[in-house]
Order: sequence, then structure tokens, then C-alpha cells
Amino acid sequence: MLQTANSEVPNASQITIDAASGLPADKVLPNITNTEITISEYIFYRILQLGVRSVFGVPGDFNLRFLEHIYDVHGLNWIGCCNELNAAYAADTYAKASKKMGVLLTTYGVGELSALNGVAGAYTEFAPVLHLVGTSALKFKRNPRTLNLHHLAGDKKTFKKSDHYKYERIASEFSVDSASIEDDPIEACEMIDRVIYSTWRESRPGYIFLPCDLSEMKVDAQRLASPIELTYRFNSPVSRVEGVADQILQLIYQNKNVSIIVDGFIRKFRMESEFYDIMEKFGDKVNIFSTMYGKGLIGEEHPRFVGTYFGKYEKAVGNLLEASDLIIHFGNFDHELNMGGFTFNIPQEKYIDLSAQYVDITGNLDESITMMEVLPVLASKLDSSRVNVADKFEKFDKYYETPDYQREASLQETDIMQSLNENLTGDDILIVETCSFLFAVPDLKVKQHTNIILQAYWASIGYALPATLGASLAIRDFNLSGKVYTIEGDGSAQMSLQELSSMLRYNIDATMILLNNSGYTIERVIVGPHSSYNDINTNWQWTDLLRAFGDVANEKSVSYTIKEREQLLNILSDPSFKHNGKFRLLECVLPMFDVPKKLGQFTGKIPA
Amino acid sequence: MLQTANSEVPNASQITIDAASGLPADKVLPNITNTEITISEYIFYRILQLGVRSVFGVPGDFNLRFLEHIYDVHGLNWIGCCNELNAAYAADTYAKASKKMGVLLTTYGVGELSALNGVAGAYTEFAPVLHLVGTSALKFKRNPRTLNLHHLAGDKKTFKKSDHYKYERIASEFSVDSASIEDDPIEACEMIDRVIYSTWRESRPGYIFLPCDLSEMKVDAQRLASPIELTYRFNSPVSRVEGVADQILQLIYQNKNVSIIVDGFIRKFRMESEFYDIMEKFGDKVNIFSTMYGKGLIGEEHPRFVGTYFGKYEKAVGNLLEASDLIIHFGNFDHELNMGGFTFNIPQEKYIDLSAQYVDITGNLDESITMMEVLPVLASKLDSSRVNVADKFEKFDKYYETPDYQREASLQETDIMQSLNENLTGDDILIVETCSFLFAVPDLKVKQHTNIILQAYWASIGYALPATLGASLAIRDFNLSGKVYTIEGDGSAQMSLQELSSMLRYNIDATMILLNNSGYTIERVIVGPHSSYNDINTNWQWTDLLRAFGDVANEKSVSYTIKEREQLLNILSDPSFKHNGKFRLLECVLPMFDVPKKLGQFTGKIPA
Ligand SMILES: Cc1ncc(C[n+]2csc(CCOP(=O)(O)OP(=O)(O)O)c2C)c(N)n1
Ligand SMILES: Cc1ncc(C[n+]2csc(CCOP(=O)(O)OP(=O)(O)O)c2C)c(N)n1
Repeated sequence: MLQTANSEVPNASQITIDAASGLPADKVLPNITNTEITISEYIFYRILQLGVRSVFGVPGDFNLRFLEHIYDVHGLNWIGCCNELNAAYAADTYAKASKKMGVLLTTYGVGELSALNGVAGAYTEFAPVLHLVGTSALKFKRNPRTLNLHHLAGDKKTFKKSDHYKYERIASEFSVDSASIEDDPIEACEMIDRVIYSTWRESRPGYIFLPCDLSEMKVDAQRLASPIELTYRFNSPVSRVEGVADQILQLIYQNKNVSIIVDGFIRKFRMESEFYDIMEKFGDKVNIFSTMYGKGLIGEEHPRFVGTYFGKYEKAVGNLLEASDLIIHFGNFDHELNMGGFTFNIPQEKYIDLSAQYVDITGNLDESITMMEVLPVLASKLDSSRVNVADKFEKFDKYYETPDYQREASLQETDIMQSLNENLTGDDILIVETCSFLFAVPDLKVKQHTNIILQAYWASIGYALPATLGASLAIRDFNLSGKVYTIEGDGSAQMSLQELSSMLRYNIDATMILLNNSGYTIERVIVGPHSSYNDINTNWQWTDLLRAFGDVANEKSVSYTIKEREQLLNILSDPSFKHNGKFRLLECVLPMFDVPKKLGQFTGKIPA
Repeated sequence: MLQTANSEVPNASQITIDAASGLPADKVLPNITNTEITISEYIFYRILQLGVRSVFGVPGDFNLRFLEHIYDVHGLNWIGCCNELNAAYAADTYAKASKKMGVLLTTYGVGELSALNGVAGAYTEFAPVLHLVGTSALKFKRNPRTLNLHHLAGDKKTFKKSDHYKYERIASEFSVDSASIEDDPIEACEMIDRVIYSTWRESRPGYIFLPCDLSEMKVDAQRLASPIELTYRFNSPVSRVEGVADQILQLIYQNKNVSIIVDGFIRKFRMESEFYDIMEKFGDKVNIFSTMYGKGLIGEEHPRFVGTYFGKYEKAVGNLLEASDLIIHFGNFDHELNMGGFTFNIPQEKYIDLSAQYVDITGNLDESITMMEVLPVLASKLDSSRVNVADKFEKFDKYYETPDYQREASLQETDIMQSLNENLTGDDILIVETCSFLFAVPDLKVKQHTNIILQAYWASIGYALPATLGASLAIRDFNLSGKVYTIEGDGSAQMSLQELSSMLRYNIDATMILLNNSGYTIERVIVGPHSSYNDINTNWQWTDLLRAFGDVANEKSVSYTIKEREQLLNILSDPSFKHNGKFRLLECVLPMFDVPKKLGQFTGKIPA
């Protein structure tokens, strides 16, 4: 069962260190005088080599021995969460914020299924989450006897052997690859490396299932000397990619009014640098639009930035875009809300759609080629001098102005919009829950590079609170600058509340703006404005919660209740608040029916 | 699409009311002058007819219109939970406590998957939970276009149409039946009725998937005049059942020392009355043992009750049982912990195993016949005079006595055992979390009829807290006497903490004993006694939590920290505490490594 590695111990010069980790060699590689390490260590070293430092999850008796080895891999930290769904949300956001990968560790059945909704979210929203699961022992899997183990869902027939692989099958519905480890150590390592690569490559979850009786299986440590290369590898011949790029370039040069739409897949598939190279060449000759998910990729202060395309719900912007001669959509992330509720309306014959799994030029979808291949070629080939100067549009920024809304209350969601517009920097991360405020996102004025993290496609509420933990740890682990700002609904916060406790445990420095509007407002505007199912327990003492979770002396957090516009504007711009190094909870007391204009339009309550 | 019902309106005398509901006719039946009602109402009326009054869940835009109809069905209450997993746990326990059914309502994808771990628990532990899911519109399901709807997990290929039935497929792994409603109203009603019956019959989850554009579909209200009959229907000819019963009776009459094991399926398959009839006839001629899950079916004060069989972990009891001449296992619930970690050791040739899906006489398993058929026949045919008087054993009750343990702390788990032994009545419900205290359950002295609710097979922690909500509402809705006592670990409570808030919202009158032992003790005794992954944030101010959830004036709850044995014994026996009508939280501060004897043995830390 064990492999004996006879090869030489590599010396330091042979060792490649993953730049991202920023850790010295003895941290990303084991003491290689031991040529064998356990498979558990192997997995953790592979993770560390990616630069990842935080592993999120909950222990369980099927993963304890595996998890014990995390202490052998210096530089990797265990982030124990209160439950598995919260851990999945945190890992998902760690991936989105670090642009590397999030790692989740759970136990058989009860743990992995608790996390499933979070994994499905990562799958749907394209976050590379590596899910490590400690499973039932291989010896039980292979035993023909009916042994009704705990955590193993019973068979339909109580007297029949249960299917030990049921959860693996379910996981395959929401993942791009998986490794069900058996007792061949070479094969095991190959599968692990492959899953890590696919998870990164597809930017979607991958699974490693480690039976609990294999945690000590020895594998060859030498493999670690070759880190897993996180670069796109393609099959298409260069000439074909160049052909496609040329076709696009011709269309660019031929047309007068070229418009660019920048969208979410540029970030999710890490094509920022190639995209910026292209934009550099376009200079200020073309008009720039973003989608909701593309916001922050091009700063809205850019002279050519027109507005956020949201279909019929922002007609003035839509009319300008749709009337262009050629529209190039960079990093198209096609889903309901990002497309203004399926109201995008771009004539096919002038549309170039560059996405992560295909390129579509004027209606000819080609899935054998992707934007990851085409963008670098476009960047190098684009000849600025041949690009026509498009008609310059008036910047569509009426929605940025402090709106001259009918003020109905002394604090409204528009005040939060204004505060964010004024305070968010390009280094910051903004997380917005699937709450009423989500519909304010298209109308935010976002600076270049601000990373906006949404879950508007999967749209599982409760995401944003643990996401704050994940994003903040990514900032810390990857030495990023900037801070996390989170907009969280009260109904959503209820879902995952306990993770506030982890903000104290892990000294999280972030700001959470809690919309206390007495229940599920977003639903109230859809059906049942006063129906009891849209109520929650509204007596929560939000500003007492962190104290109850242990911060009795306000050493690690501050909590304020905000009821006035001025109060909010002042506190968010106050450096002594922003930089207090604590977790900052701002409970904003809002009217029950105060919603962003676009939510009113979307639900047909006010005309679009 | 709509059905026109021309039949006569039934008059009151034609209407059968489900006895369990205790509601007048106009509550369990709609105003039948309308011969058509919406399918949403139809589902809710069917539920009400079972006597169920509480529907647990979380709203979402795919179920809002459906849910709106709950208000048309008077007598049915919406119990809005903080999240779906908690709602699933509550519905599961409502089923176990009411012995009828639990109903859970969630939204497409995000909601149903969040609940999945709870549903899998109900499946594994045999709780009849009817899961109602509002799904994507039938018109979208049938539309060939790729429409990346929110809550609909993306396809592997972003440009392909997603599978709208993926979650239904996953649900089928943990349910016995499902109805995927389409636009034929007759078929829809037939499927609904069938699923409700199978859910009850198999005592496992069933699903009804209602597309959101069908919530207003009209169906024939007349069907409601015939309630769904919740009785077992069988195929086996009477002669065959009698033959099997005779075979068992012969073995009973032939043997001298007959022992009975009473087990969990008697409750889960509602065979108490038949079982008691049989026991009545056995009188005190045979020896009685219970399993962990069978506890409370026969009071341990019964003169012939010997002890709880737990395999090699209670050798003295095991030796007595295993040496009997004939062993009849009533309601065998075969799983790891219930079988003392698979250490049951009963020779096949003297073993009769009566279970819910088979009968096995001396090693011949017959799945074409079940205990539900055999018990009534045994009850009527058993001739007391032909039963031999078995040797009387000394009652094995050393573990009931206040143990002369080495007292290491002023409060230990044994003190909780003693308190429960002294205070629990036969009407009470005891819920024990999968925490260290679970291993105290075999050693509790339980009075007849006390309903002990465990989740020791599925073993998902966090269960017990929302379970307290479900069981307490079942007591209220079904007019049962008794109270709920819950033993909850601190690490487990973290998982589902927010549901404490519902104790206030729904005025829950129950006692929760919280084991504050600084983390995952049960795991510490397995691996990593001092490993950080077994730690939690231990600064929680448990007794401040209910205040933070809104009970600022202690009107609906009381919370105490208990540090001394006497304090605990006094408070639990104090009638002014027990009957204060509030939610009672007792935080018990315990040593980190204080565990029940059987947990020490089970994990090999002390000899079995
Ligand atoms: C896990 C999950 N359950 C249910 C829903 C349905 N849902 C969508 S939005 C929403 C209400 C959000 O309320 P809140 O967070 O208070 O924000 P508000 O709309 O009040 O701003 C609900 C219940 C969901 N999206 N995800
Ligand atoms: C959903 C889920 N996640 C993880 C586990 C693994 N697990 C089993 S027991 C346990 C610890 C329970 O700790 P606590 O509730 O504090 O009880 P104690 O053992 O300290 O009495 C854990 C994490 C599980 N059973 N279920």
C-alpha cells in the first residue's frame, strides 16, 4: 500500500516556491528529509503552495485525524466556523476576494450536506472552492455487510447496505471535478492535483473525499517540489485563436461607434490584466458600459464610462448602448439579475460576446474557444490607431447625485448609497446581500478596482454575513489593502447570525451595515406586504449581540444604531471609526417599505 | 386546465372529520359552496385534516403565492423560522412528538437545499416530514430557451439550459415519494394524497413540488370530503400473517426463558397500542430489556424491566439477555449507536426480529411481511396461560443510583442525569443532542411513556435546539400534557443558535439545559483533546442571549447559570420554575473533560 520514494532529496535551488504564498521554502514544503508524508499533509501542503492560509470548516469524527495534520503544515490556519453552511459561504468569499481559492473542510454526510447550499452557490456564481470531506472508512465501504454507521443515510430498505457514495453523487451536481481517494497513493496524489487545477481552471467547486482510515496513508513528498501550475492550458492551435481575434479586430476597425460592456467573468476568470491592456489601447475612443457584476472593473470616473446596463430598467443607458454600431461584451456572465431581469436587448448582428466557455461573434457561438485565449491576442494585436472615435455620450450619472427623492424618513437606503459612493476606495471590497439593497448596486458610483461581491444569481440569503469573515481573512492572508463593507438585511442576517461570533474570535476588521427594516422587505414588495410570513422577530437588540457573543468590554467590536442621515454620513467618513481595527456593526433603522428605485420598478410597483 | 365540479355539495352528515384535528367541520373543510379551490388551499386543507396545525419554513419568491393561501385555511399556523435547516429540524421533531406528521415549506434551490441535511436526518431517523417546495414556473421548465433564473443552479455549460429538476432528483435520495405538480388538477390531487399517505406510511420524508405559476390552479374541493386514511394497508393474505404469528407463538410457548427487547420502531411506526396489548398478556412472565431508542416504552419501574441493552458496553445486562432461551426484538431500529456500536451479540437461532420492513424468525428474513401486520395478530392470539415464567433477574439498576463517582467538580453530567431521573414524568419529552450527554441516555431511568427524541443515527449537531421548538408546538397543537426538556451542547447550540429567537416569538414553554464545557468535548475524547479545531468561541454570554433576541424584560424567558449540583437539583424540582410558562435556559458550567461513563468506554478511554 505504501510507496517507497528512492529519489534524491531536492536541494533548495531545485525548489520552486509559489510566489503567491510569500512564505519561505520550509513552510510551503515539508522537511523533505522525510521522503514520505501522509496524504493529509500532502493535501494541506498543496493548499499552502497556492498561497491560501485559511481553511474553513467544522470538525467531525470522520475528519479529525485528517484535520490533526493541519498543524504539521506551518502557515495554514484553521478557521473553525459555527456551522458548515456559514463555512461554505466564508470559503466562497475567500476565493472571490483572494482571486485564488477557498478551502472548506467538513465531515461525512451531516457536514457536507449542511454545506451543500453554499457549494451550489459557489458553483452557480463561479467561485473556486475546494471542498475536503472526511468520509466513511474504505474498509466499511468495501465491507459487504449492512452496517448502519452514523452519518450514513439509511437505505430505502433498512436491512440493506447503504450506498456510501450517495453524497459524492450529489456533490457531482455542483462541482467540476472530484477525487474519491482510495488506497493507491500515486493515483491519490494525481487526483488531488487534478482536482485543485480544475477547481481553479473552471472557477467552480471541486471535491476531495478522504476516507477516515486513509488519513495516515504515506505518499511521496517529492511531488511537492513541482507546484501545481495555475495557468490556462489550451488545445486550440495558435492560428485558430489568431483567426478569431482578427475577425473581432476587423469588426472593431470597420465600425464607428464601438461600445464595450465589461462584465463579471473578467474577474471570476482572472482576466483583468489582459482586459486592461485592451482598454489601454482603446484609450478614450470607445464608450464603456458595465453590467451589475462588472462594476468596479472600470472606474465610473473614466471619461468614457457611460453607465450600468440594466436592460429596460435603465432605459436611457440601454438606448445609448443598444444603438451602438458594435458592442463587445467582455466576460459575459449571463443570468437573470445581471441582465436586468432578462431585458438585455442587443441586436445579434452587432454583438461580440466573449465569455469563459465560448466566444460568440454576431450570433455564431463557438464553444471550442474562450475569452481566456482570445483576450491576450486581442491585447497584443489591437492597433489603437485604427480604432474610430465613437460619438461621445453624456455621462449618465443622474443616479449618482444625492437624489432629490421624496424624503420620507430621516434615514433611507439612498443615504447608504451616498455614503458608499463617498467612502469606498478602489481597494475596498463591498459585499451586498440578496436584500432590498441589492437593487441599489447598479446605481452605485464605484471606483476602479473596488471588488463588489454579490450572490444575485444563486441568491441565497444569509450569505453576506459569513462572507464578511471570508473576505476579511483573504485581505489579511494575501496582504491586500482595503477593507470590507457589507450590506446585510435583517432577515438575511438571522440566517447565519452565529458567525458574528467568529468576527470576535478571528479579530475581524470590517464594517457591516445592517438594514433593520422589520422583516423581509424585498418580499413584501413582491407578495404579502403585511403577511405574517414576511415578519421576523423584530425585537432583536442588534447592538447587544456582539456583547452577548463575548465582547463584553467592546475590545473587538463597536455597534451603533443609526437613525439619521447625518449620523451615517459622519460615521462612515470618520477615520477614527474606519481605522479602529475592530468589527463595526451599524444598525440602520429604516422604514419597512423603503427600497431602491430599481426594486420598485423590477417588481412593477413603480413604472420602469 | 380547470376542472368543473358538478357534483352536489356534501351536507354536514356526509363529512368525516379527522378526529385528530379536533377542529369543527368548517375548519377542516373549505366553504364547500365553492366547489373549486386552489391547489394551494387543497394542500393546506389536507394537512389540517391530519390534525397538524403548524407549518414550518421560510418564504421565498417561488412560494409566496402558495404560502399566501395558508391564511385561507383557518386553524393552520405559519411558523416562520430563522433558516431552513432549523425549520427542517423543527418539523422533524413536530412529527416525532405529535406522532402524526411534520410539515416544512421552503423555496426553490436555496431553501430546499439548505434544509436537505435536516431532511436526510428525518429520512435516516424515520420522521414523516412532508416537504413542500415552491419551484420555478412550469412555463420556464417547458421553455427550451436558456434562462438562467435566480435559484436555478447553472449548467456545466453556461450557455445551455439548466436542469430544472436537479433538486427533485437530489430530494429523491432522501424521501420515499414525491409529487412534481403539473397542470392536470386531478392528477395533481391524486399525487398529493398519495405522497401524504406514503410519508406517513413509511415514516420518512415525502416531497410536493409546486411550480410557482400553478399556485392558483383550481381543483375540485369535493375530494376533501374523503380524508386521507392513515391506516396501514397490506397485501399479504390473512392466513400467511397468521402462519407467521403461529410460528412465533410456538417458539414462545416452547421456551422457558423468554426475553423481550423493546425498540424505537414501535414508536416510529405507531405500534404502541398493539405492543402494549402483547405486553399485557405477557404480564410479568418474561424479562424486558430496552434499547437506547426503545427507552420510555416500558417504564423502568416495571418489575420485569432488566436494563438497557447496549452490547458490550453494558456487559452485565448483555450477559443476561444473550443467555435467554428466546429473544423477541419488537421494533428493531438497527443502527450503530442503538446497537452499542455494533456490539449486539444475539445468537440467531433464538432470535425473533420484528421490524417495520421485515420479520426475521431465527435468521430467515422475510421482507414480504412486517411487524405492523404481525403485532395485532400476536396480540389477539397470544395465550398468557401457555407462556412460561422466565427466571427472574435482579433488576440491573446500579447505574440509576446517584453514582459514587469520583466527584471532580461541583457540577458534573451525572448530576444532570440524576435531575432528569427525578423530575421527568411519563408525559414529558426529552430531547438529547448528539453531544457527550447522548452517552448518558442508556443509563437514564425513564418512566413509562416518556418520549425520548434523539438523532443518534444521523447525528447532525444543532438538531436539538430547533427540535425544542417543534416538540413544544406539537404539545400545544395536539393538546398533549407534559413539557419538553432539552439537553444541548455548547458547540451544537452554536450551529442553530438563532432559533432561540423563535422561542420568544412563539412563546415556547420548555427547558433547555446547555452544557457549557468549552467546546466539542465528544470530539476531544476521540482525537485532539487540546487541538484548536475542538475549541469554539467560549466567551458567549449564554444568559444574555435571550435578552439580545428581544426579551429585555424577561417576560418570556428566564436564564440561569448553574455551577453547583444542589442548584441544579433544586431548580429542576421547583414547581415555580417548571410551571412559569416561559422558556427556561439553564447554562450548566461543566469541566471540559467531564463525560458519561459510556462515552469514555466507547472511545476506549476507559475499559468497557
Ligand atoms: C436561503 C434562502 N431562503 C429564502 C430566500 C427567499 N428570500 C429572498 S430575499 C428574502 C428576504 C430578505 O430580507 P432581508 O434580509 O431582511 O432584506 P430586506 O429585503 O428587508 O432588505 C428572502 C426570505 C432566499 N433567497 N434564500
Ligand atoms: C452538522 C454536524 N457537524 C459536525 C459534526 C461532528 N460533531 C459531532 S459531535 C460534535 C461536537 C459536539 O460538541 P458539543 O455540542 O459542545 O457537545 P459536547 O460534546 O461538548 O458535550 C461535532 C462537531 C456533526 N455531528 N454534525
